[in-house]
Amino acid sequence: MTKKKIGIIGATGYTGSELVRILVNHPGIEICVITSESRAGEKFSDVHSSFQGIEEQKLVSINQIEDYELDLVFLALPPGVSMDFVKKFHHKNFKIVDLSGDFRLSTVADYEEWYHKNHVYPEGIENGVFGSPELFADKIKAAKLVANPGCFPTTAILGLAPLMAQHLIEKDQIIIDSKSGVTGAGIKAGPVNLYSNVNDNFKAYGIKNHRHTIEIQNILDHLAGDDTMVQFTPHLLPVDRGILSTIYVRPLEAMNEDKLRELYTNFYANAPFVRMRNQAPAIKDVRGSNYCDLFVSYDDRTKRIIIISVIDNLVKGAAGQAVQNMNLMLGFNEAQGLNLVPVNP
Amino acid sequence: MTKKKIGIIGATGYTGSELVRILVNHPGIEICVITSESRAGEKFSDVHSSFQGIEEQKLVSINQIEDYELDLVFLALPPGVSMDFVKKFHHKNFKIVDLSGDFRLSTVADYEEWYHKNHVYPEGIENGVFGSPELFADKIKAAKLVANPGCFPTTAILGLAPLMAQHLIEKDQIIIDSKSGVTGAGIKAGPVNLYSNVNDNFKAYGIKNHRHTIEIQNILDHLAGDDTMVQFTPHLLPVDRGILSTIYVRPLEAMNEDKLRELYTNFYANAPFVRMRNQAPAIKDVRGSNYCDLFVSYDDRTKRIIIISVIDNLVKGAAGQAVQNMNLMLGFNEAQGLNLVPVNP
Amino acid sequence: MTKKKIGIIGATGYTGSELVRILVNHPGIEICVITSESRAGEKFSDVHSSFQGIEEQKLVSINQIEDYELDLVFLALPPGVSMDFVKKFHHKNFKIVDLSGDFRLSTVADYEEWYHKNHVYPEGIENGVFGSPELFADKIKAAKLVANPGCFPTTAILGLAPLMAQHLIEKDQIIIDSKSGVTGAGIKAGPVNLYSNVNDNFKAYGIKNHRHTIEIQNILDHLAGDDTMVQFTPHLLPVDRGILSTIYVRPLEAMNEDKLRELYTNFYANAPFVRMRNQAPAIKDVRGSNYCDLFVSYDDRTKRIIIISVIDNLVKGAAGQAVQNMNLMLGFNEAQGLNLVPVNP
Amino acid sequence: MTKKKIGIIGATGYTGSELVRILVNHPGIEICVITSESRAGEKFSDVHSSFQGIEEQKLVSINQIEDYELDLVFLALPPGVSMDFVKKFHHKNFKIVDLSGDFRLSTVADYEEWYHKNHVYPEGIENGVFGSPELFADKIKAAKLVANPGCFPTTAILGLAPLMAQHLIEKDQIIIDSKSGVTGAGIKAGPVNLYSNVNDNFKAYGIKNHRHTIEIQNILDHLAGDDTMVQFTPHLLPVDRGILSTIYVRPLEAMNEDKLRELYTNFYANAPFVRMRNQAPAIKDVRGSNYCDLFVSYDDRTKRIIIISVIDNLVKGAAGQAVQNMNLMLGFNEAQGLNLVPVNP
Repeated sequence: MTKKKIGIIGATGYTGSELVRILVNHPGIEICVITSESRAGEKFSDVHSSFQGIEEQKLVSINQIEDYELDLVFLALPPGVSMDFVKKFHHKNFKIVDLSGDFRLSTVADYEEWYHKNHVYPEGIENGVFGSPELFADKIKAAKLVANPGCFPTTAILGLAPLMAQHLIEKDQIIIDSKSGVTGAGIKAGPVNLYSNVNDNFKAYGIKNHRHTIEIQNILDHLAGDDTMVQFTPHLLPVDRGILSTIYVRPLEAMNEDKLRELYTNFYANAPFVRMRNQAPAIKDVRGSNYCDLFVSYDDRTKRIIIISVIDNLVKGAAGQAVQNMNLMLGFNEAQGLNLVPVNP
Repeated sequence: MTKKKIGIIGATGYTGSELVRILVNHPGIEICVITSESRAGEKFSDVHSSFQGIEEQKLVSINQIEDYELDLVFLALPPGVSMDFVKKFHHKNFKIVDLSGDFRLSTVADYEEWYHKNHVYPEGIENGVFGSPELFADKIKAAKLVANPGCFPTTAILGLAPLMAQHLIEKDQIIIDSKSGVTGAGIKAGPVNLYSNVNDNFKAYGIKNHRHTIEIQNILDHLAGDDTMVQFTPHLLPVDRGILSTIYVRPLEAMNEDKLRELYTNFYANAPFVRMRNQAPAIKDVRGSNYCDLFVSYDDRTKRIIIISVIDNLVKGAAGQAVQNMNLMLGFNEAQGLNLVPVNP
Repeated sequence: MTKKKIGIIGATGYTGSELVRILVNHPGIEICVITSESRAGEKFSDVHSSFQGIEEQKLVSINQIEDYELDLVFLALPPGVSMDFVKKFHHKNFKIVDLSGDFRLSTVADYEEWYHKNHVYPEGIENGVFGSPELFADKIKAAKLVANPGCFPTTAILGLAPLMAQHLIEKDQIIIDSKSGVTGAGIKAGPVNLYSNVNDNFKAYGIKNHRHTIEIQNILDHLAGDDTMVQFTPHLLPVDRGILSTIYVRPLEAMNEDKLRELYTNFYANAPFVRMRNQAPAIKDVRGSNYCDLFVSYDDRTKRIIIISVIDNLVKGAAGQAVQNMNLMLGFNEAQGLNLVPVNP
Repeated sequence: MTKKKIGIIGATGYTGSELVRILVNHPGIEICVITSESRAGEKFSDVHSSFQGIEEQKLVSINQIEDYELDLVFLALPPGVSMDFVKKFHHKNFKIVDLSGDFRLSTVADYEEWYHKNHVYPEGIENGVFGSPELFADKIKAAKLVANPGCFPTTAILGLAPLMAQHLIEKDQIIIDSKSGVTGAGIKAGPVNLYSNVNDNFKAYGIKNHRHTIEIQNILDHLAGDDTMVQFTPHLLPVDRGILSTIYVRPLEAMNEDKLRELYTNFYANAPFVRMRNQAPAIKDVRGSNYCDLFVSYDDRTKRIIIISVIDNLVKGAAGQAVQNMNLMLGFNEAQGLNLVPVNP
C-alpha cells in the first residue's frame, strides 16, 4: 500500500517532538517534511537529541512546503501563526490538523473577545471541525481542516459530554478545577517554567479568564443545545506531563451512582481511548499514551456529581489526538499507530 | 526569666521533628522530654539525622512522662492514641496541645460517624478548644486542652471565615478543592507515599468522605451560626510540604472585588500569620513558615467568589500553629519563636 | 507464523510490568501466562492499573506453570528465589531469561562472598550465559539460561568494553560513580523509597560493598583476560527511571580523543541500541527506550579518560535487554518489538 | 549595642534572597540598603514574594550606595561585575564579602586562563582573603575584602583539607564527582534550568573545564604546599538546593578507617558548621542550614579513601558562609544568626 505523505509544520516544541515520536512507528504514513524557522538546516535530532538514530531528517523552512505533494499536514505553530498558514495554503490539496487555538471556537466574536486579537481567516472558524473523535467522528472524516482540541478542554469535554447530551445537570453550575503539567506552558524558557519556580511548588493561574474557558463552553453549549456557564481554574503541577480535572456539577434530579456510571460506559462503548475507571485515576496511569481515563461519582450528601478526568496533555491533549484525527481523515483505523502503553512509573 | 517546661509526646513522625525544629530556637521554653515508643533509648538525632549537633537528648517511653514537672505537652501521636493519653493524664497540671483529630469535632456523634470508632474521652470533645488562633484566641488562652486544627481545615477555615461571619454566601454551595504535599500522609512507608507512585504523578483521594470535611463544616457552622454543607476533595501533590485550597462559593448578592478584599484585610488586620496577597500565592511562598497566604477574587461573569489559601501543612497546618497556640496558652507573644522566613526556593 | 509462547514469572514488580509493556506490542510472541503469588486470581490490570484494556489476563500461581507449553519464560522474582525456580524447572523445555542476580557471577565463590548466602544451583552459574547482547550474542543464541545483566553493570560494562578488549587502560584504576533512579530499589515500600526521603534529596549508598561491584569486575576480568579492580559507588537520584554512570580510567599511554571515539564507534557499529553521542547525554534522552547512550572524553590535563553511560534501568537495565536476549534466543531480529522511542520530556 | 550597618548589592537572584532570609533574624545587624539595577524602585518583596510582611524596603540603584555609611557590603552580582564594583569602591570604609568568582583564585594568570577574560583589579586577587572560615579564620577577621568560596569548592575543600594538610595522599590522584541542585545555575531562565529539562533527569556538564576546578586546586595546592591535580566533574540534580560531592583519593600508605575518622574529628573540633557523620549524609540533612556534613571511608579492597561531603549550595555554599565570614569580620560570634535548623523534609 502506498504510504500517505505527511508534513509537520513547526518541530522545535513539545508537540512537534511528540508527533514524531508517534508517527515514526505508524505503519501507514511517511513523514516527508518537517519544518522549523529557527533551526532550519539542522537535523531533527539536533533539536531533540533523544531522536538520534531514529529521525534524522533535515528541517526546512515553512516556505519550502510548496515543494512537497502531501496528504496531510500537522500545524504545531506558536499561537496566532496557524491562521496565517491556513489562510495562505487553504487552496492546496493537503488536509490540515491544526494544534493551535486558532480554529477551535464557534465564532470570530468569541475568538476576538478571549484572544484579544483579530482573526485573519474567519472561513477557517466556519469550516473547521472541532477534532474530538469521540463526539464528531463523521465530521472529522469529511473535514479538510480539523482544529485539534486544547488540552484542558479535552479533559473537560470528555468528562461532561454524556451529561450534557442528556440534559441531566444545571447548565450554569459547572466548575472545572484543572491541574496541568509544565509542558502545557511550552518549551520556551521563562519564569513560568523555571525549574525552581515549579519544583516542590504548586499554584493557580489564569483565574477567571483562561482562554480554554470559552472553548469548553462553546462545545458544551453545542452538546446541550443551550447556553452553559463554565467556571474553569487551571493550576500548575510540578510534573512534566498530564492533566487531571476535577469537575463538580449538580444534577437536576437526585442521581444513582450506578446509573451514572452506566450512562458513561454506554456513551463511550465504542471509544477506543476512553477508559471508564472504578477508582480515581492518577495522571501516570495514562502517561505517554492516548487514553483519557474517567471516574464518575455521586455524593448523596451534597447532591453533587464529581468527575475525575485525566490525560497526557502532550498525547491525548495534543499529538496523540491529532494522529487519531489524521487516522479518521485519511481512512485509517482510528487507533492505528496509537498502541502506546502508558509509561508508569 | 524561668523557661517554661515542655514535653513532646511522639517524636518519630514529621510533626515531632517540626516541633523540635521550631522549639529549639524559641527563647522562652525548654524541651524537657521527648517520647517515642518505637525508638526509646535512642537519641532524637538518631531518628532524625538532620538534628545531629542540634537536639541530641535521649527519647524516653511515654510512661516516664510522670517523672517530669511540665507546663505544656504537645501530642504528636498516631490517630486514635491521643484520646487515651488525654484521658489518662487529664488530672495532671500540664496543658495540652493535641495535634491529632481526636478532639477537633463538635460532637461525639460526628466523631463516631466520620472516624468509625468510639470516642473514649467525650469530656475532651466538650472542653477542648479548637486551636485556630485567628478565630478563638481568647478561648485558647484559657484552655487546658487545645485541639490543633487539621491541615486542610486550616486553609479552608481561614479562607472562608470572613464570609461566614458576615453571612454573605450560600451556605450549602461551598466547594473546597484541596491539594496537599505528601508529608500529610505521615512518615510510615506504604503505597500512598512510595516515591514512584507520587513523583511526576497526581491524583484525588478521599472523594466524598474525607474526615476533614466534617471538621471544616463544624467550624463553618459555628461561624455562620447555621448549618453549612461542604464539598471537600483532597488531592495528592508530588511535593513534600504545602497545601493549596481552591475554594468556590456563591455570594447571596452580587459582589465587588475591592470590597471583598477590604473585608478580608480588616478581618485579619491583627493576625500576624495571615497575609492578604494581591496575586495568587504558590505553596513555596510559605514553605517552612507559619504563614497562611490568601487571595480572594470575584468573577463577574459567573457570580462566584474564588479563594486561594496556602499553608505549609507541617507548620501552619501542624507544628507551627501548635506553637502559636502554646504561646497563647503560656502567655507569650503569639508570634514568639515563629520568625521562620519561607524557604524559597 | 506461529507465535512463540512466553511466560512471565513474577508480575507485581516494575520489571514484570515493563516486560508486559514491551511484549504486548511484540509481533512474534504471545504472553501465555503471568504468575504472582501474592495477587494470584486477580487480573494483571488490577495490580498495574495503567494496563486496563491492554492486558487483563488473570494471574496464576507459579505452580501452575507446569500446565503450559512454553518456549521461554522470564523470571522477575525477588532476590534469591530465581535459583530455586531454575533448579526445579531446569529439565523443562522452555528457555529462561532470569532478571535476578542469581546467575550473573562467574563463580559460586564470588556469589557466596558478595551475596552472603549459599547457592542452591551451581550448574546455573556454570551453564548460564551473561546476557549482554553487544558482547555475547553468539552464546546467547545458543543458551538455555541467560542471566540478564544488572542495571548498573549494563552501564559500566558497555562503557568500558571497548577499552578492556584492547588493553588500553590501567586495570586496577577503574572508578565507576553511578547514579540511579528509585525504581532500582524495587516496588516494595520502605524508608529507602519513601517519597519525602527521596524527593529533592540525593545520597550515596552501598559504598565499598554493593553487589554489582563484583558483577562488573567479573565481566571486565573476562574481557581483559586479566584481573581488574573496580571501585563502584551507587547513588540514589530523585527520579523514577534512569542510570547515569560517570567512569574514570587511566590509559596506559597518552590518548587522542578522536581516536578514542573512533574506537567506540567501531566497536558498536552493529549494536542497534548503543548510541555514541557527541555531547554528554542525560538520562531522559533514553527514558522508556532500550538505548544505552555513551559519551567518551579524554582530559589532556589530567591524562584521564572520562566516560558517561546512560540507560533506562527498567528497559536496557532490565526488561528491554531481557527482550533483546529473548529475540536472540528465539531467532527473532535482535531489535524486534523494541522500537521504543524515548519519552522526553 | 549599635547595630552594624549592612548593604546587599544585587538582590534579584537566589543569593540575594538567601542573604535577606538569614540577615533579617540576625540580632547584631541592620540591612540599610539593598540594590538592584533591573528592579530599582520596587520593593524587595515585589521581587521575592515570599518576603511580603518580612522585608519590604525599596530597592535602589547601585550608584546610590555612596549615600550610605556602611560597615560591610555583600556583593551578589553577576559574574564579572564584582571586580568593577570593588575597583570603584575600594577606597570606601566598608568591608566587602564578594560572592562571585572574581577574587577567589591565587593568581591573575589562573583567572584569565579559566575565566577567559582580563581581570580589571589585580590588587583584589592579591589582597583578598579566601573566605573559608574553617581554614583561614584569622586572615578573615583582618580582611577588608573576602572572596566567598564557590559552592562546589566548599564541599571539596572541606572534604579534603585534613588530608592535604597532613600530606597523606597522592596529590595528583584526586577525583571529585559532584552533583548540584539547579539553583547553582542562577535564577535567569534558560534551557539549563527549564523545568522539563531538569525534572526526572540527570546529566554531567562542564566535563574537564569547569572553573571551580582551578579554585579547588589553588586551595589544595596552598594546603599541601605543593602542586596538586584535580579531576572535577559537576552534574545537575533535579533538586532545588544541595551539593553532594563524592571524592576519591589514594593514600600514600595503607589506612585505617578509625584513624582516618579521628583525623577529621580533630581537625574540625572547633568548627561549628562541620558535622562528622557516621553514615553517608544526604543533601536534605543540611537543607536550609549552614552545615557541611562529612563522611569518610576507607576501602581495604581497593586501597582508596572515599569522602562524601554535602552542603546547601545557597547557604554554606553562598549566603550562609558569607554571613559566617561577616561575623568574623565584624567581631561577632562566628555562628551568630546562623542557627538555621535543616528543613527536612
